[in-house]
Amino acid sequence: MKYNETHKGYMEAAFKEAQKGIFSAAPNPSVGCVIVKDGNIIARGFHARHGTDHAEIVALKKAGDKAEGGYCYVTLEPCNHYGKTGPCTKALIASKVKAVIAAIGDPNPNVEGEGARCLRKAGIDVLLDVETSYAEKFYKSYLFKVRNNRPLVKIKIGMSLDARSSMMSGESKWITNHESREDVQFLRAESCVILTGVGTVLKDDPSLNVRHPGIQMKGRQPRRVVLDSRLSIDKNAKVITDGNNTSLFTCSQNNTLIETFEKMGCEVEVLSSRDNRVDLSSVFHKINKMQVNQVLVEAGSFLTSNILSTTFWDELVLYVAPKIMGKDARSAIEVNSPQYLKQVTELELIDSAFFGQDARLTYKRL
Amino acid sequence: MKYNETHKGYMEAAFKEAQKGIFSAAPNPSVGCVIVKDGNIIARGFHARHGTDHAEIVALKKAGDKAEGGYCYVTLEPCNHYGKTGPCTKALIASKVKAVIAAIGDPNPNVEGEGARCLRKAGIDVLLDVETSYAEKFYKSYLFKVRNNRPLVKIKIGMSLDARSSMMSGESKWITNHESREDVQFLRAESCVILTGVGTVLKDDPSLNVRHPGIQMKGRQPRRVVLDSRLSIDKNAKVITDGNNTSLFTCSQNNTLIETFEKMGCEVEVLSSRDNRVDLSSVFHKINKMQVNQVLVEAGSFLTSNILSTTFWDELVLYVAPKIMGKDARSAIEVNSPQYLKQVTELELIDSAFFGQDARLTYKRL
Repeated sequence: MKYNETHKGYMEAAFKEAQKGIFSAAPNPSVGCVIVKDGNIIARGFHARHGTDHAEIVALKKAGDKAEGGYCYVTLEPCNHYGKTGPCTKALIASKVKAVIAAIGDPNPNVEGEGARCLRKAGIDVLLDVETSYAEKFYKSYLFKVRNNRPLVKIKIGMSLDARSSMMSGESKWITNHESREDVQFLRAESCVILTGVGTVLKDDPSLNVRHPGIQMKGRQPRRVVLDSRLSIDKNAKVITDGNNTSLFTCSQNNTLIETFEKMGCEVEVLSSRDNRVDLSSVFHKINKMQVNQVLVEAGSFLTSNILSTTFWDELVLYVAPKIMGKDARSAIEVNSPQYLKQVTELELIDSAFFGQDARLTYKRL
Repeated sequence: MKYNETHKGYMEAAFKEAQKGIFSAAPNPSVGCVIVKDGNIIARGFHARHGTDHAEIVALKKAGDKAEGGYCYVTLEPCNHYGKTGPCTKALIASKVKAVIAAIGDPNPNVEGEGARCLRKAGIDVLLDVETSYAEKFYKSYLFKVRNNRPLVKIKIGMSLDARSSMMSGESKWITNHESREDVQFLRAESCVILTGVGTVLKDDPSLNVRHPGIQMKGRQPRRVVLDSRLSIDKNAKVITDGNNTSLFTCSQNNTLIETFEKMGCEVEVLSSRDNRVDLSSVFHKINKMQVNQVLVEAGSFLTSNILSTTFWDELVLYVAPKIMGKDARSAIEVNSPQYLKQVTELELIDSAFFGQDARLTYKRL
């Protein structure tokens, strides 16, 4: 069996399914699947949320007995382990499909070729890694997490063209336009954690959630992680009261306060401190252990600049508004300068887009 | 006679001719012309430099007697006045061409429909304004000058993504990459004046000329205008010694120095002062009276910011390098801030381009 244009068409249909779960499946990969028999797609499925049936199971259940002798197109190598749901390989073998075609192998150590091997052992034809280039982009943060054992960390900055992000008064709403802010909703939706500082919460009281009618979250919301060294967050802050998940990362030892916030539904993590603030190494050490593929940093210039000064981040997403805020406005980026120009931090421009008059420039840390 | 696809093809050929003089004809418009007879282009011409034959004359001379009964396609309405060369209308009438097709009317008060009227009066068919949309772009700075009675002023800034343009030490070479700096050569080439400050000359000793093998200047170089309040420029500076035109705009009354620089070939203009510096109103008042269609400001952050704070400029061309220079580096833009965000200067993003890892964002003053 060779991968050809016909196969490609069905794989596209499988990715179309996968697209449906792209914002809701995290931290699981958003997998899509179609079962084809006699040249017809007889069943489709996608993985909607962590803990629910995998795409293959959804499709096989729909196909029922008709799956026998069929072709299963799936966007990621089927799993062979008992996680929240049984192994897909077992279900595929039981369904007596003739062949399984997977866009890319799953580098997750629980799978890593075992899915394909197990199917082959049972006499099923398997084509693996047939659309790696597309799948690498589609599963970017999932693959990053599996390969690096830590999430992809994106830093978002909205600024004027003179790189300022708030007026002297602290006023910072809104520098970028409506379309840019809508785009940020997509950045949030593909993230598992939104990282911010207590200063931003106290100043702007943002909800940092996804509330875009075009984004299907199916109930999922990224977890807000607020760095709050002294637990000085307002108990009425939206991130505390809106019912979605929030973690407070603190170095406060005030157990009364800790218990108060825990009772209000927050997770409170007491981390080590550095210069009287939560130590960023501990923050990312903690986040790296969470089931999190992508972190979005949406913070003020102080925390943003502190993170930019470390190696804990991967991409910088700049939204540049066509405005000049002037020298009394606060710089969006305030990292330390080296002595010579040749020593400055160099990044790689990896993407650009435009939202009305705003430019979005995405850079990668080198 | 109606403008059709055949006409369009010949007009494109005329613009191809015009393209040849695009950098050398300034401050004249770069005009191209083709003479067509029996479906063949029998002669082509373009205006190469101020003071030389206009495109129509070049083409008519080549065509000779064969022009009779032919069609003349020209990218701008033929002139009807005696300038450096005789009126083109006279030559066209004498050549006995049957028709003249001009892409756009010339709003120059010396022409302004008179060219077309004069030709029609002589019995020549005239089609005017047949490619206005393309011609508006092609003659952007020329048309701007004629309509507004002042040149189009572009400000160029090369900066890091945190909007810094020099290290604390003053080091600023090179923030942007080679491709961006090559692109700046094109910005210079389409300009008649490069405006800078003495600080930049003393610090970097730039030549501010066009030296790109792909740009046909045919001997023309934009005039450097250096704002030098106290005539403190180095006599060995490249802009003084390289043989190309330089004006020093000063408020110094030191006649010895003035004569020295004049003897070295510079034009020295003594202008009024404001806060012990050359007054920017006087600077632009002076420049507006010069035969100049486009001014490019290439200066340090002080002068750049001062000009940005006025209404004397039209477009801001930002080259953004993928670098973070840090808080000790000097901000590229340091205009005064208003109190509220809604009062900040808003611009219009009119163009974007990428040169390797650098982004070029062009904004228009609103």
